[in-house]
Amino acid sequence: MESADQLGMSVALQEAQDGYKEGGIPIGAALVRIRDGVPEVLASGRNLRLQKSSATLHGETSALENAGRLSAEVYRECTMYTTLSPCSMCSGAILLYKIPRVVIGENANFKGDEELLRSRGVDVLVVDDEACKSLMAGFIEEKPQEWYEDIGEIHAH
Amino acid sequence: MESADQLGMSVALQEAQDGYKEGGIPIGAALVRIRDGVPEVLASGRNLRLQKSSATLHGETSALENAGRLSAEVYRECTMYTTLSPCSMCSGAILLYKIPRVVIGENANFKGDEELLRSRGVDVLVVDDEACKSLMAGFIEEKPQEWYEDIGEIHAH
Repeated sequence: MESADQLGMSVALQEAQDGYKEGGIPIGAALVRIRDGVPEVLASGRNLRLQKSSATLHGETSALENAGRLSAEVYRECTMYTTLSPCSMCSGAILLYKIPRVVIGENANFKGDEELLRSRGVDVLVVDDEACKSLMAGFIEEKPQEWYEDIGEIHAH
Repeated sequence: MESADQLGMSVALQEAQDGYKEGGIPIGAALVRIRDGVPEVLASGRNLRLQKSSATLHGETSALENAGRLSAEVYRECTMYTTLSPCSMCSGAILLYKIPRVVIGENANFKGDEELLRSRGVDVLVVDDEACKSLMAGFIEEKPQEWYEDIGEIHAH
């Protein structure tokens, strides 16, 4: 990974780890503006389903929410870093704001709408990060019901 | 429209009108569970970009957020009512939660990801409502910059 990517992914992973410590679903994201190769973390966020009973604050949407109102031009200079492959909602948010690049920690525990992103011209990189994978795998084993709720799936007990 | 649809759309439109009165972008939505033909409004919501500096609380996502944590089974008995064709993010949220049906007030002022929804099996009905259309058209004329920001578009001054 390039250094901007290492920075972005480390911020996203820290959010995921902080979420895990709070008892939350450990998925984090960071919105990073990169100009002339210099990264600026505009905002980061984490999944807040369990902490805030939120149905819409996933990692990526939390980062976007924490960034506040930005003009369309800013998003187009950004990369979204996320520890886990973005679900349909978060992929849709990336498409809405025309964020041109997404770096994904892992898609082994869940594969979201990566192909839709690619089909619409988004540059998607999956870095297959072991720390992201093991954090998420551990959570799913501990709290499967909460995880299936988060992705709108019916969990067979 | 069926009576459940009239109820759902009237709640969504009221949200949009309330948003307009607050100085917000007038888009509203309602999440309605329909069992044995009997509708139950689980939650409603409106676009809160201007009121809360929110980048993620659109009409549909606000309704989902206000509904709180629901199990996957509940969403599958719901219809999402929205005054305006859902953007990529809101379409993605509908797909995430596998909401089987979406009723849209109008798509003349903005056409979102309706075709993606249909391609994935969502039943999409556009009712072409004059009240939804005129409310939104009026807002776009009054505050074009805020509207283009909301849909991630660069506005040519």
